[in-house]
Amino acid sequence: MDKVRFGIVGCGNMGTGHAKNFLAGKITNGVISAVCDINADKFAFFKENFGDSIKYFDDAEAMFKSGECDVVMICTPHYSHPDLAILAMDNDLNCIVEKPAGVYTLQVKKMLERAENSDKILGIMFNQRTNPVFKKMRQMIKDGELGEIKRTNWIITTWYRSQKYYDSGAWRATWAGEGGGVLYNQAPHQLDLFQWIVGMMPTKVRAFCHFGKWHNIEVEDDVTCYCEYPNGATGVFITTTADAPGTNRFEITGTKGTLIFDNNKLFFTKLKVDEREHCYSTETPFGAPEKFNTVEIEINEEYPMHSGICNNIANAILGLEDVYAPAKDGINGVELANAMHLSSWLDKTISLPIDDELFYEELKKRIASSKIKENVTERVDAQGNI
Amino acid sequence: MDKVRFGIVGCGNMGTGHAKNFLAGKITNGVISAVCDINADKFAFFKENFGDSIKYFDDAEAMFKSGECDVVMICTPHYSHPDLAILAMDNDLNCIVEKPAGVYTLQVKKMLERAENSDKILGIMFNQRTNPVFKKMRQMIKDGELGEIKRTNWIITTWYRSQKYYDSGAWRATWAGEGGGVLYNQAPHQLDLFQWIVGMMPTKVRAFCHFGKWHNIEVEDDVTCYCEYPNGATGVFITTTADAPGTNRFEITGTKGTLIFDNNKLFFTKLKVDEREHCYSTETPFGAPEKFNTVEIEINEEYPMHSGICNNIANAILGLEDVYAPAKDGINGVELANAMHLSSWLDKTISLPIDDELFYEELKKRIASSKIKENVTERVDAQGNI
Repeated sequence: MDKVRFGIVGCGNMGTGHAKNFLAGKITNGVISAVCDINADKFAFFKENFGDSIKYFDDAEAMFKSGECDVVMICTPHYSHPDLAILAMDNDLNCIVEKPAGVYTLQVKKMLERAENSDKILGIMFNQRTNPVFKKMRQMIKDGELGEIKRTNWIITTWYRSQKYYDSGAWRATWAGEGGGVLYNQAPHQLDLFQWIVGMMPTKVRAFCHFGKWHNIEVEDDVTCYCEYPNGATGVFITTTADAPGTNRFEITGTKGTLIFDNNKLFFTKLKVDEREHCYSTETPFGAPEKFNTVEIEINEEYPMHSGICNNIANAILGLEDVYAPAKDGINGVELANAMHLSSWLDKTISLPIDDELFYEELKKRIASSKIKENVTERVDAQGNI
Repeated sequence: MDKVRFGIVGCGNMGTGHAKNFLAGKITNGVISAVCDINADKFAFFKENFGDSIKYFDDAEAMFKSGECDVVMICTPHYSHPDLAILAMDNDLNCIVEKPAGVYTLQVKKMLERAENSDKILGIMFNQRTNPVFKKMRQMIKDGELGEIKRTNWIITTWYRSQKYYDSGAWRATWAGEGGGVLYNQAPHQLDLFQWIVGMMPTKVRAFCHFGKWHNIEVEDDVTCYCEYPNGATGVFITTTADAPGTNRFEITGTKGTLIFDNNKLFFTKLKVDEREHCYSTETPFGAPEKFNTVEIEINEEYPMHSGICNNIANAILGLEDVYAPAKDGINGVELANAMHLSSWLDKTISLPIDDELFYEELKKRIASSKIKENVTERVDAQGNI
């Protein structure tokens, strides 16, 4: 195989965005070979830029069976990700799903079970994992530089969206079409990083989701969530699409120091002694443990974003690299989002792992009462059929 | 009256601290005239510095009846604040209570009812209200510079205390002696400012207090609290005595801008248009409202701290100024702390105003099971008797 052939399913914002990276020559070992959309209007960009050098399909299965692709990128509305990924693997294709891995854990588990029984690669578009700042944070924690984690607070409110955005697609921000709001569309990146960076999932979640609080939509656009971890640490995760200019600040406090990510800068304050030892050994009642000066951590590595994931998958298919963001990691963010919904719907603290069936039952109630928007051209049903 | 004569009840840390400000000549129109403590050892500092120029008492009532004071400062353990303040007013004295106003709302209300029927001044030592940064924040919000408040997040984890601190007083951090931990001893300042600055109290509180999590104590030393306000705004309040170096960052987001207090610096980002108007009128799906550059707000006014409150009370008694921090404001912080305890104890969301009786019943259960520390010299009972 010379170059890995990529097929794109869903030629909306994301599908088009990926294609631009290929056009810009950012994917060393990959080319676009085919695209698929149920709406032929969406091909305009592709016709103009790729012409007849790629194949056009209006049916995903036909593309998967065409032999034109080595890997397919699933860039359709969220509900359809797992079924389309399964269909791809059934057709012996490698696959990258856009985030989130799915809307509910049951469907994601089905996809992951299929992947277990496949020798194909199933990756997920966690492009923010390629941000060297987040990689550095994860590595520092892995290396024990923070000691034991005590507190994780992420305020991520820079996801501003206007009403116009929500009005731009019939499936958007409806229970039936999208299955969730800011937790399922904008914040999945941070829901992934929130647990990927510290290396542990919360065991308890108490969330306060507000549905259609700031926009005329069915789903959540404002969330405050409290978490507890297996080691006793606690955290908050706060997100919305209505704050301006918004904050992106992730504070992680450990027994040996504090790491603060603020607007893509990283600050570290290291203690001279472990706080837990200091607490019980010092003779000073008021004095905190001594610390070194706070340093800004210099990051010189580049941030390849979406191209980083595409290059990695191409190279993984060629046997040159391991998969950097495997889809099996995608269930964590979905589980967190599901737990936050469930906590708000049932008005109680939810233990993780969640009850997958219970969540899906509750989601189906919301889907049943979901209002169809007037323009339904892009609508998918709850089973992910486009 | 030439100079206002101050009596101090309780010659521990705070009582001694106030006396030092008088010695340093910081209280223009006030002098120390008398002190009171049940433990004569605590007079050492006063004997050395004031000698026989002041009177010494081992009984608060005797001091109140002595005619030696115009105003008394109540610097005793928390439970005793309301009863001692009532006793002071019964003896026709002005009074400043240390924070918190009391441990539970029932006793604070009793004190405030007494003050209603008194022509004497009852102030509270909210010295952080004299911080010009907080005054500025309050003023800006009052002036409408932030528009309608949407979010209030305060992470105040700079209150580090070692086990040694908790071991330093028999009453400390016990249900019977102190009635609470970080919410009642360290964070009352911020619980006051949290609602004083934005000009509204939360109507709902869901808190996660952890009791003796980081120290060998009975009461809470780690709290994460979620709040909802009457206008729909939400917030979090996070505090602990175990984080190092800790964070002191208060973010307030309004429809017209964001104010960030971080480590005594103040940053303001003003939007060019109200976000609520922009959301529904813009044709741009992704674009947040335009904003002006973030500015650091210069504060040139000095921060008089505890002396500011003492000077104000002296001047108020002399008819020169209004009372800056009246004790009636003190109930808000106590109510928030009580609501946070109650929410954790009952594991549910609490509506404000709280059920005063229910809170006191629950508190008494904790007092009943409270363990007496070995050194009981400073212990007070639940009725506030020293």
